[in-house]
Amino acid sequence: MNKIRIGSVGLGRLGLQHAVNIASRVQHAELAALCDVDAAKLKEAADRIGVPRRFAAFEEMIACKDIDAVVLASPSALHTGQIAAALAAGKHVFSEKPLGVNVAECKEAEKAVEAHRDMVFMLGFMRRFDESYQYAHDKVAAGEIGKPILFRSYSQDPEKFIAGAIAFAPHSGGQFLDMAVHDIDLARWFVGSEPATVYAVGGCYAHDEFAASRDGDNVSCLMKFKNDCMVFLFAGRTAPHGYNVETEIIGTRGILRIASVPQKNLVEVLDGGGVRRECSQNFLERFDSAYVNELQEFVNCIIEKRKPAVTVYDGTRVSEIAYTCKAAFESGELIKF
Amino acid sequence: MNKIRIGSVGLGRLGLQHAVNIASRVQHAELAALCDVDAAKLKEAADRIGVPRRFAAFEEMIACKDIDAVVLASPSALHTGQIAAALAAGKHVFSEKPLGVNVAECKEAEKAVEAHRDMVFMLGFMRRFDESYQYAHDKVAAGEIGKPILFRSYSQDPEKFIAGAIAFAPHSGGQFLDMAVHDIDLARWFVGSEPATVYAVGGCYAHDEFAASRDGDNVSCLMKFKNDCMVFLFAGRTAPHGYNVETEIIGTRGILRIASVPQKNLVEVLDGGGVRRECSQNFLERFDSAYVNELQEFVNCIIEKRKPAVTVYDGTRVSEIAYTCKAAFESGELIKF
Amino acid sequence: MNKIRIGSVGLGRLGLQHAVNIASRVQHAELAALCDVDAAKLKEAADRIGVPRRFAAFEEMIACKDIDAVVLASPSALHTGQIAAALAAGKHVFSEKPLGVNVAECKEAEKAVEAHRDMVFMLGFMRRFDESYQYAHDKVAAGEIGKPILFRSYSQDPEKFIAGAIAFAPHSGGQFLDMAVHDIDLARWFVGSEPATVYAVGGCYAHDEFAASRDGDNVSCLMKFKNDCMVFLFAGRTAPHGYNVETEIIGTRGILRIASVPQKNLVEVLDGGGVRRECSQNFLERFDSAYVNELQEFVNCIIEKRKPAVTVYDGTRVSEIAYTCKAAFESGELIKF
Amino acid sequence: MNKIRIGSVGLGRLGLQHAVNIASRVQHAELAALCDVDAAKLKEAADRIGVPRRFAAFEEMIACKDIDAVVLASPSALHTGQIAAALAAGKHVFSEKPLGVNVAECKEAEKAVEAHRDMVFMLGFMRRFDESYQYAHDKVAAGEIGKPILFRSYSQDPEKFIAGAIAFAPHSGGQFLDMAVHDIDLARWFVGSEPATVYAVGGCYAHDEFAASRDGDNVSCLMKFKNDCMVFLFAGRTAPHGYNVETEIIGTRGILRIASVPQKNLVEVLDGGGVRRECSQNFLERFDSAYVNELQEFVNCIIEKRKPAVTVYDGTRVSEIAYTCKAAFESGELIKF
Repeated sequence: MNKIRIGSVGLGRLGLQHAVNIASRVQHAELAALCDVDAAKLKEAADRIGVPRRFAAFEEMIACKDIDAVVLASPSALHTGQIAAALAAGKHVFSEKPLGVNVAECKEAEKAVEAHRDMVFMLGFMRRFDESYQYAHDKVAAGEIGKPILFRSYSQDPEKFIAGAIAFAPHSGGQFLDMAVHDIDLARWFVGSEPATVYAVGGCYAHDEFAASRDGDNVSCLMKFKNDCMVFLFAGRTAPHGYNVETEIIGTRGILRIASVPQKNLVEVLDGGGVRRECSQNFLERFDSAYVNELQEFVNCIIEKRKPAVTVYDGTRVSEIAYTCKAAFESGELIKF
Repeated sequence: MNKIRIGSVGLGRLGLQHAVNIASRVQHAELAALCDVDAAKLKEAADRIGVPRRFAAFEEMIACKDIDAVVLASPSALHTGQIAAALAAGKHVFSEKPLGVNVAECKEAEKAVEAHRDMVFMLGFMRRFDESYQYAHDKVAAGEIGKPILFRSYSQDPEKFIAGAIAFAPHSGGQFLDMAVHDIDLARWFVGSEPATVYAVGGCYAHDEFAASRDGDNVSCLMKFKNDCMVFLFAGRTAPHGYNVETEIIGTRGILRIASVPQKNLVEVLDGGGVRRECSQNFLERFDSAYVNELQEFVNCIIEKRKPAVTVYDGTRVSEIAYTCKAAFESGELIKF
Repeated sequence: MNKIRIGSVGLGRLGLQHAVNIASRVQHAELAALCDVDAAKLKEAADRIGVPRRFAAFEEMIACKDIDAVVLASPSALHTGQIAAALAAGKHVFSEKPLGVNVAECKEAEKAVEAHRDMVFMLGFMRRFDESYQYAHDKVAAGEIGKPILFRSYSQDPEKFIAGAIAFAPHSGGQFLDMAVHDIDLARWFVGSEPATVYAVGGCYAHDEFAASRDGDNVSCLMKFKNDCMVFLFAGRTAPHGYNVETEIIGTRGILRIASVPQKNLVEVLDGGGVRRECSQNFLERFDSAYVNELQEFVNCIIEKRKPAVTVYDGTRVSEIAYTCKAAFESGELIKF
Repeated sequence: MNKIRIGSVGLGRLGLQHAVNIASRVQHAELAALCDVDAAKLKEAADRIGVPRRFAAFEEMIACKDIDAVVLASPSALHTGQIAAALAAGKHVFSEKPLGVNVAECKEAEKAVEAHRDMVFMLGFMRRFDESYQYAHDKVAAGEIGKPILFRSYSQDPEKFIAGAIAFAPHSGGQFLDMAVHDIDLARWFVGSEPATVYAVGGCYAHDEFAASRDGDNVSCLMKFKNDCMVFLFAGRTAPHGYNVETEIIGTRGILRIASVPQKNLVEVLDGGGVRRECSQNFLERFDSAYVNELQEFVNCIIEKRKPAVTVYDGTRVSEIAYTCKAAFESGELIKF
């Protein structure tokens, strides 16, 4: 079987991890090229991973005939443009979230994808590829917990990364866009319905800097979905203990909790602190295998001429919801979808 | 030291437990009399516990000179009348929640208490007397978790008691009044502030019977408190695993979770179900010692001529909030306090 | 019903707790008298608890007609003498462990008990009265875990109490006599058989002072019981996290673990230490209700003219086994019973 | 970098997994050939994985010039012969445990390895490559728990696989050789010392069939190591809940527990069984990534011309200890090394 030759764009923390994963952990894939505007970073990464072809310009990379697909981990504002260009150049596209920085852009991406129905397009909602989330979703899909009553999901970043979060705040779109977007995706996936209402609250509990972006360091929202399921989401930047992504689905016949203790491994420590589990500290650690699995699925879809379960419309829908949450937060009013 | 002679009213499940606790587990107290309109139930309980004096009429009981205090576990609609009468008769009063069945009644109770400032009046918010809740509250009060960001509290009754809940639904006032009232009390106690807004959702996920009372079998609400703390409450009647009262307080420097596994004891079972903890099944089991502790505090207050930390105004305030949650649930609209 | 009037002997930490429990937490009991050779300690305790009758001499106390029973928390070397004297004086006797400081003494105690078959005699194996141990024992007795394969039990005292343990070492009889004796009692109770062999190891890992008493700061033994069940016991003085008494029973159809996390309550803390449970720090905290329950059973046996399930022969047998463990530890050889 | 071309021998459950791992999960490696005497099994696996070169005869495979290394998952009795032959043919060798079926064979393997010091030889003690065991070992090595006092390790196979275990019993060497061998390896690795004494017990608690091989279905042993550390090992075939490999290291300053709940993932289920974690069911599931990591280390050693930390002498030593445990079990006597 010929390997899928992938050009990967963007060498931030996640982009770098995608590059390493493609090069060494995704089957039937080959890291054919790397692209980044930062020449030094590009050279360092390409040398280390062992990628001969390097591009400063995205357009040049997608002009290459022998590249089959691109992985976009570029700045969010570039996503929709690069999606359209790459599809037009005949490349399959895997894009990191968000699909676009506003809903209009998402609609543009939809058009591009619709114009190239023979190509594979996939969005990076990696949590769906975490084995624990998949295991829980299988149980829900099999009816093991009955009808969903309450879906609760948290995304908490450790306080120790707060400086970066503050610096990025003016560009992040806020906690709902930047963090809760994954929880919104999970809510739609698990609940199988769409939000009907949203009320959002929050504030700057430890770091007033977020107020300048009309955001909070911790926010939450309560939504009612069209099938009546209650959805409560919480996103925060000040977790004292680690990177805490946890989800609970309360059903009429059973309850599932995913990662309610964000333990980094199976070691339990008994010392002056009591009996304790040390915690994962960031998304790359917690979702290490999920990042591999999602790219594997992307590659498998290309090979098997299938379409991923995550569609471009999921990207638009999640963005719409996140923007509505943000509007609810900013206005302090209940919003009906 | 002379014992405080208590007359206890009402022999439902909780009233019976109060009677047993006074008779045998509360120091410096004596169960002097029992009162219930059901003659058979009264005889059975009084014989078993060993209480010579029995009353069908509350008025007769409080006419007794040698009774120092009354414990009210009577039907909610009788509370405020009995409170006023007992205080007027010179008895200290411990009343089960709710203070009254509407806010007007609560205000009547306030007046009665204010008219007898030399008497001890206490409301049965027993969770404050659970050792785990007290331990957590001490930590919060000591500033160990910093400023509160999110307060989340669940009250879930097991599905197996659903028939009783349905039968009682027309009289219960709904889940916010009947169940979440304890969570509202905890929220005010832990957060140290009052609600500013509330949005409430829910529905009949398994049992349509609750709709007739404009209620759901599971409900939740998101509030913003005046000090900006987010408060999320969930109350449900269909828990598959047991009686699940859990609370989380996320602060800027630490997070506390109380009873996130509602384990009945310290036994872990490893069998075909995996590694598992069996759960408490009802409030009497979970809060067994809290029910003793609260009555002990009531008795201690009488002896030491102190006033309990839980005041009649807490009862009114919690009722007002619960009614507002109920109104928010019924209207589907955001309510600002 | 008349209350059982109890005279309590010895005002060390546990003796004091017994006194408080009798005075205020055990039903149908009355703390009629206190006895201790330390006059200051006696006055302080008796004043605080409110006990009018105080004795320096045990003989004087048991000469009182209106005392029904004695609770012995005196020095171990006095136990058998006091047991015999109290029984001869017509008093029911509850004695703390150990029954005697050697097996010959235990046999004396047996004779005294046999000579007064109308009196209640009970030994303080309090773990049998802990609700978690009782719950587990009920499951084992009901056959829920099948046939016992391995019984494992730990008794660990926190390092912070090491100074007291070292000071007491010459008189304690060693870890097997002083600590593992409770695990030996549990083993016989759960397994329902007697040891056939024992091999014991251990040493001074942190504190060489124990070597002077031919003991270790941490020791363990592996026994084979006559019904083939394997029994592994571990006793240590250097626990970094708290007072850790845990037990596991592996059966052919199920496994039970009691207190494998020695959590002090239901609060979980999430902070820089990860997700953690704070631990119980001493036996009085961990077995608070068990100490009440065992005295309640003692009193109930007196009232109901029953005999406790724990007999004087259990005391002798456990002592014999503990001495054999100690001999195995000292010799380094396998001992067959 | 050229890939290391590996020929893999044996297509049992573990052999098959090794083949898949080499083909798709180990970096810088290529599955060049497969070898098995079962032609049907060989064809099926080679077709599925996509390996063109297939061998019935091991000798033919190692005669190939373009094979760099072999992975041995063949029957235990063939290990030492194949190790010697492969090394003589200039191949690096990774062998599954056990090194040999008796100590004499192990010594033969040592000689073969010593005769080819330029080749990489590695034994499959995969637990050392599990991330949780590595994390714990790093803490121990860094002195975080002080001096080791007690090392306890369990290996339990689920009851549901008992038929296979009984069928294999005459050839397995018994529980100490077949299962506890991994715990012995861990003990030496964590404790950093060698056993001085061993006492072993056990029996047929559920399945008398093991008696015919002078073995039990569950066995345990207590060893004292030369540095005084106590070591307790337990191996069983009748676990009711799953595949339970857990380890505890009690030190003078801290305690570590690895996998004390053998949870299969991060999902917690709340249902009629209480709050529960579902368990891993077999070694391939539990040690999935460890099996990849150990082969990765093997390949990395070849590439970097390093020697693995696990040596042939570890294989001999572990076998010697396991045989001594077995002898102790069979004799019922204490054995001093």
